[in-house]
Amino acid sequence: MIVRDFHAEKKTDRRVAAEQWESVRLLLADDGMGFSFHITTIAAGSEHTFHYKNHFESVYCISGKGTIEDLAKGEVHEIRPGVMYALDQHDKHTILCEEEMVLACCFNPPVTGKEVHREDGSYAAAD
Amino acid sequence: MIVRDFHAEKKTDRRVAAEQWESVRLLLADDGMGFSFHITTIAAGSEHTFHYKNHFESVYCISGKGTIEDLAKGEVHEIRPGVMYALDQHDKHTILCEEEMVLACCFNPPVTGKEVHREDGSYAAAD
Repeated sequence: MIVRDFHAEKKTDRRVAAEQWESVRLLLADDGMGFSFHITTIAAGSEHTFHYKNHFESVYCISGKGTIEDLAKGEVHEIRPGVMYALDQHDKHTILCEEEMVLACCFNPPVTGKEVHREDGSYAAAD
Repeated sequence: MIVRDFHAEKKTDRRVAAEQWESVRLLLADDGMGFSFHITTIAAGSEHTFHYKNHFESVYCISGKGTIEDLAKGEVHEIRPGVMYALDQHDKHTILCEEEMVLACCFNPPVTGKEVHREDGSYAAAD
């Protein structure tokens, strides 16, 4: 059994941060669960475009407020506590954050912890 | 892209309930994500023993308070907001809930939605 506390792990290198967002990876590939699990915080007033070409991701909103735009369809969905979105088509999307959002994110395949967002908004496939 | 709202889905058959707990399955096997994602609520004062022999499960505490006992090791861990546990050894465990807990749960392989807890606390393997 693995037990980890977000509040402790965010002080370690499990926390990665970039412009206007940070993510604490509570489970990574080497934990052997077959998925990774991250608590991601997005800053109020920020906008982010991601495109996980090599991963499926689900995101559950714990707190905060914003929107997600499905760029292929041009559809905009509200994000508020209780809303989950799942990028089952590796959907390219833009997140607009109105109030700081705390999100519970699952990735399959699991993130290794060594990825960086590339210019196209994706993570590279694991080796 | 799949978008679902816990507050809406809990009025559908995505909600399953048993003694002192309920679970709303926001993602199931047929969503094709490779994991399932559930929001599970456990009633204050209740105790539950589970043993997912055929699944890995991670659980992140959004709210509430309780403990988890790793029955093989006899170790007890506090559950409070921000704590995650992951049953990477298919660990048999007992959850004691002091204050109603809301938990974000990921299962691999994904739950199909047709499982019931068996007498031994496990779910059957998917066909």
